[in-house]
Amino acid sequence: MENIDQLLKINKQIILASQSPRRKFLLELIGLKFDIIPSNIDEDHLPIQNPGELVKELSYLKAKAIGEKHRDAIIIAADTIVWLNDEILSKPIDAKEAKMMLQKLSNNTHKVFTGITLFNLVEAKQITDYVVTEVTFRKLDEKEIDAYIKTGSPLDKAGAYGIQDDFGAVFVSNISGCYYNIVGLPVSKLYEMLKTFIQN
Amino acid sequence: MENIDQLLKINKQIILASQSPRRKFLLELIGLKFDIIPSNIDEDHLPIQNPGELVKELSYLKAKAIGEKHRDAIIIAADTIVWLNDEILSKPIDAKEAKMMLQKLSNNTHKVFTGITLFNLVEAKQITDYVVTEVTFRKLDEKEIDAYIKTGSPLDKAGAYGIQDDFGAVFVSNISGCYYNIVGLPVSKLYEMLKTFIQN
Repeated sequence: MENIDQLLKINKQIILASQSPRRKFLLELIGLKFDIIPSNIDEDHLPIQNPGELVKELSYLKAKAIGEKHRDAIIIAADTIVWLNDEILSKPIDAKEAKMMLQKLSNNTHKVFTGITLFNLVEAKQITDYVVTEVTFRKLDEKEIDAYIKTGSPLDKAGAYGIQDDFGAVFVSNISGCYYNIVGLPVSKLYEMLKTFIQN
Repeated sequence: MENIDQLLKINKQIILASQSPRRKFLLELIGLKFDIIPSNIDEDHLPIQNPGELVKELSYLKAKAIGEKHRDAIIIAADTIVWLNDEILSKPIDAKEAKMMLQKLSNNTHKVFTGITLFNLVEAKQITDYVVTEVTFRKLDEKEIDAYIKTGSPLDKAGAYGIQDDFGAVFVSNISGCYYNIVGLPVSKLYEMLKTFIQN
């Protein structure tokens, strides 16, 4: 049985430059073999021009930081932001902020941007691109928001929700774009990028 | 910690009238407690008027068949079809048909319809509704299609793919609507229907 690794004829080590358990899960889902070496890029010092450019730049910086130390490997790096009314919703600092974020998302449509960079130093190859998905929440009751926050899950997630959570799944009424982008890694785009990267 | 069961104040047995492992997974995801009693409705004898009406009717027949035997329970029944160019793509009968289906889906947009019925005989309550999601496949290589069919997964799935599969995930470039509908049960719609069902 041929898997995606073999189909793409990948013959180098792949390193995922992220410690996100959800990105690990998604790379495993599509059957790639890889190691994990998180990069520690300080994300706060970049000016926000526009969200697409920002996530591309951050994914590039993460890939480069790891790629310079692991010169023969193919580095996969990504950066995801949740974007509502021209501002970034990061991870909430506490339950109170999580509640404010979920109240803003309720009955509203926001965007999730993920930038991806593939990087290999030895062959001097690099591709960077991004994906955007629109996500619509139905109108949430305060009870529903409070119950979700009590599960603890919103606190370690940008925008205070995970679409793959129990409550997250029932809060989202509509999406437009790539579903896996909302989880943290747009695997269809990543696959196409890997195909281009390896063939060129 | 409050879960969705408690939030909805469900105080009856819930029966899922489906043997689909994916529907079971999704009901578990949102934290409902339920039993499984599949209904055996013959789906082939209904005339196809339009896909939305068809899946509503089929979900109703499934719910009624089980609900008449389990009069006090809340029955959840669903029916999903894959719809392309005014025809239904069912489960492929063999690898050859699976390949034809995936070739039709390639570089194209199709629709996934799911009808849902909630049914309770004792209180004479019933709600039926449906959800539609548009799914776009990128252009697939013959190699990719062949590799996916060799995994065996396309053979037990309507339309010959699962968006939650390794290859399925990288074939789909865009969706518009509810993601979980494509997996087999639109949980956000189901949750709203349960809320209405229990309050009324």
